[in-house]
Amino acid sequence: MSQTEEKKYVTYGSCCAGSCGAKGNLTGCRFSLSPMTDRYVEIILEAIGKVHAGKVWQTTDKLSTVYRGKRAHVLDTWKACFVHAWREGVHMTMEATISKGCPGDTDADSYLAEDDELLNEPEIQDIHFPVSCKISLYPMGVENYMEYIAKAVNLSIDMGVYEKSAHYVTILEGDVQDLFRYFKAATASLEQELKHYILEVTLSVNSPTEE
Amino acid sequence: MSQTEEKKYVTYGSCCAGSCGAKGNLTGCRFSLSPMTDRYVEIILEAIGKVHAGKVWQTTDKLSTVYRGKRAHVLDTWKACFVHAWREGVHMTMEATISKGCPGDTDADSYLAEDDELLNEPEIQDIHFPVSCKISLYPMGVENYMEYIAKAVNLSIDMGVYEKSAHYVTILEGDVQDLFRYFKAATASLEQELKHYILEVTLSVNSPTEE
Repeated sequence: MSQTEEKKYVTYGSCCAGSCGAKGNLTGCRFSLSPMTDRYVEIILEAIGKVHAGKVWQTTDKLSTVYRGKRAHVLDTWKACFVHAWREGVHMTMEATISKGCPGDTDADSYLAEDDELLNEPEIQDIHFPVSCKISLYPMGVENYMEYIAKAVNLSIDMGVYEKSAHYVTILEGDVQDLFRYFKAATASLEQELKHYILEVTLSVNSPTEE
Repeated sequence: MSQTEEKKYVTYGSCCAGSCGAKGNLTGCRFSLSPMTDRYVEIILEAIGKVHAGKVWQTTDKLSTVYRGKRAHVLDTWKACFVHAWREGVHMTMEATISKGCPGDTDADSYLAEDDELLNEPEIQDIHFPVSCKISLYPMGVENYMEYIAKAVNLSIDMGVYEKSAHYVTILEGDVQDLFRYFKAATASLEQELKHYILEVTLSVNSPTEE
């Protein structure tokens, strides 16, 4: 870039908290799968390929896959991709960002299916395996954000998936079905209470580390 | 748990934004390394073992490693672990949470070295490899958080590591030295301006995906 050429800066500064840039009731999930095996490419591509993504907008880039749409369908596709990527004995992590209400968001790149019939749940609802998980919740634009975090953590206690609090995260443990039941309940509550929240989740299976 | 037993809930609700629970000038980094190879255990343990962590508090659990202390030393140990985990041709991601000022934080589990002499930088400052990266910044407890995000993104433009904006993240690309120079500058600025921020970073090397 020459020194006289004008730099193109971003200008999110004109957005305000609470004024979601997307008009629709739009939830998004960006996730990165990391199977720790030489066969990671095959596992990732197979899992993404098995997901019925007809009711969400989707894209896959170098770093992640993104699903955007109605909350129920975004959670359904996210869960399906994780379940389909699980392999007996293979250590894998999935880092996921669930987000709703960002002032910088737009209505582009989304698809809001009219009905709530889940395309993936019937295929995956009877698959069980244990998952370790860390979550961090970021309620944006509010001073009393710790109250929302405490409420979300206490919901995990009520639903039997809370393991412990740790630096910067809450640790959850449970069967994959129970954990995603929690994500469904937690996000349902969060979207009622907050204009903009982000839930960061890292799921881990088959870790060789005992604690 | 019997139905009459009292559940132990968390009570972060009594904390307020801006009242950091830790009195010291304490920064933390929690990260998870995911080398996508059958040799992942050896790579992770070797990398952690090579880090000189004498000036930070550290712990490793099933999901992550955590360094806590002065910002300069936390960044130094985090960078060292990432550089030491890099292997020619091995796809690896590192997901990291940099956090400062959480009202739920405590002074426990920290070590604030008195001097600023970096223990790892001399060993790693001449190692170069390209890195793809996504970042998300969460300025907590303020209504105008998009302004801080825009400023951090514009700093990445000024420092030549900005690639593009994408859903929920900003994509950075660059040599490992340039990226960590950016993290140093960005966090220096954020800790001056904000009582509580979280910077979520995912670093990726040797991805087989071209874009």
